Amino acid sequence: MILTRNETARFLLERDHFVILTHIRPDGDTIGSAAALCRGLRQMGKTAHVLENKGVSDRFQWLHQGLTVEQPGENDTILTVDVASPGMLPDEFKHLLDRVLLRIDHHSSATSFTPYELVDGKSASCAEVIADVLSCMGVTLDKNIAEAIYVGTSTDTGCFRYANTTAHTFETAAACAASGAEIYRLNQELFETNTLGRLRMQSWIIDNMQLLRNNTLAVVAIPKAVETQMGVTGDDMDNISSFPRTVSGVQMAATIREGEKGVVKLSVRAVPGLDASAVCARFGGGGHVGAAGATLYLELGAAAAAVAEAMVEVCG
Amino acid sequence: MILTRNETARFLLERDHFVILTHIRPDGDTIGSAAALCRGLRQMGKTAHVLENKGVSDRFQWLHQGLTVEQPGENDTILTVDVASPGMLPDEFKHLLDRVLLRIDHHSSATSFTPYELVDGKSASCAEVIADVLSCMGVTLDKNIAEAIYVGTSTDTGCFRYANTTAHTFETAAACAASGAEIYRLNQELFETNTLGRLRMQSWIIDNMQLLRNNTLAVVAIPKAVETQMGVTGDDMDNISSFPRTVSGVQMAATIREGEKGVVKLSVRAVPGLDASAVCARFGGGGHVGAAGATLYLELGAAAAAVAEAMVEVCG
Repeated sequence: MILTRNETARFLLERDHFVILTHIRPDGDTIGSAAALCRGLRQMGKTAHVLENKGVSDRFQWLHQGLTVEQPGENDTILTVDVASPGMLPDEFKHLLDRVLLRIDHHSSATSFTPYELVDGKSASCAEVIADVLSCMGVTLDKNIAEAIYVGTSTDTGCFRYANTTAHTFETAAACAASGAEIYRLNQELFETNTLGRLRMQSWIIDNMQLLRNNTLAVVAIPKAVETQMGVTGDDMDNISSFPRTVSGVQMAATIREGEKGVVKLSVRAVPGLDASAVCARFGGGGHVGAAGATLYLELGAAAAAVAEAMVEVCG
Repeated sequence: MILTRNETARFLLERDHFVILTHIRPDGDTIGSAAALCRGLRQMGKTAHVLENKGVSDRFQWLHQGLTVEQPGENDTILTVDVASPGMLPDEFKHLLDRVLLRIDHHSSATSFTPYELVDGKSASCAEVIADVLSCMGVTLDKNIAEAIYVGTSTDTGCFRYANTTAHTFETAAACAASGAEIYRLNQELFETNTLGRLRMQSWIIDNMQLLRNNTLAVVAIPKAVETQMGVTGDDMDNISSFPRTVSGVQMAATIREGEKGVVKLSVRAVPGLDASAVCARFGGGGHVGAAGATLYLELGAAAAAVAEAMVEVCG
């Protein structure tokens, strides 16, 4: 059954014990949404916990401090936030699938898998939907709730830069700021820090990328040896494939990294109007028009040449 | 005389002919503020122009298209936007100084130099103040006005990342988005594109910055010859001083650039808790705790040494 925000608020107010589930490889939105919902339910006098998700990284641990539980109680109503399909549940949560009564989400591609659902595909983040539901419930945004909502809202929009950012996103952020969320401190932690390793890798990319078709297409092939020699970490390299596309004039960029021997990973990013997934489809991969990926069983240099050729053909 | 937003709206509604002045080295805020105010006045049936500022760079030209005039008319009321002091007027505007009747600004350090003033030091951008005044005047935010306001608001806050970002900033952005401003396209143009020149300069900075006090303080001295050799443009270097502070662990960063011979320009950025303006005050400059500047009459190397010493002393 599809619920409105008001009906969801009523659904929650009518029950008393809750456990909230987050998704696998939890990001700021699922973590922030769960924290905000949990704290909002508690403010309304409910018993509420977030089910401990082993995947929560160090930078987000503070959001779930004091909120987690290892197992749901027998009478707990089980909710999911930001979980678009059963496959997005961590393996250790999967035995609870049949008990999930309500999911709150914002993925337009979401599949129905729970008796009740509130899914707003137009919302940039699940946290924005949660903020509306809390408001319908009569919850007051305190600093902790506001910061949890802000983390979800800001991370899922790349700090208000992505195409999904709407007036409602900004209104939600305004409410968070007005309720004491330390916007600047959070932005610093979430967005304004570049590791030296990251910056050196970006420099290397600029110096080594191959520009094609009048500098509108870029191909970067990063040898494993370069990563090792620089000593870059997983965090340094996180989302590195989004970087070459930001070079002025580049409309599509492919980043190729060496994995285990004989395998390379391809990530392609494109501006609106070009199709990254069409390039990746040629190598058995897929994704969205703006961002796609594939695994290639080629040596790095051969992969770069094949990808360059595919990009030129696809982009015409 | 200090005016409220409402009094400013009345002041503008009572007059009919306007010319708006922007500041030297015009940025997104002064340009966007002037465009929005000019268009709002026109919507109210007034004659209004922006005085042509030769410093407007290519990326912002579109904002003043169809709005500029080369000379004010004899009966025009002259206004300034985002101009904190007479020294911030371009040289070719200085003969108009005595005729400036009203200035609208947001610099807390602003000096009084006009008969009427609306200065809100708590506002992150002048564009936010303009948006409020337009609202008081009964102006409807159309797409053009909304995009001009958004450019000012977003650029002066580094796309909502700087410490000056408030609930009001987000509310203003929400109104812009709701009025048809193409947020994503503007963000791509303003923030998501790095010129090769910019990226190469960032690489140079990483390789040449001096780290002090256990890597928490950074000093970067950029010789004019390096800028010339790289062929970086003014746009490439725009706000480059905000970059060194983003290196992981750096709490305060000073960027020093060579100007005309014997003069160097200092910009200091600091995280909350450290005072950038205290460093700049030692060299006769000023600004905010988070961002400040000064002009030094020293050779580049000597300036870097003096600034490093001042930073270590101020930060303790």
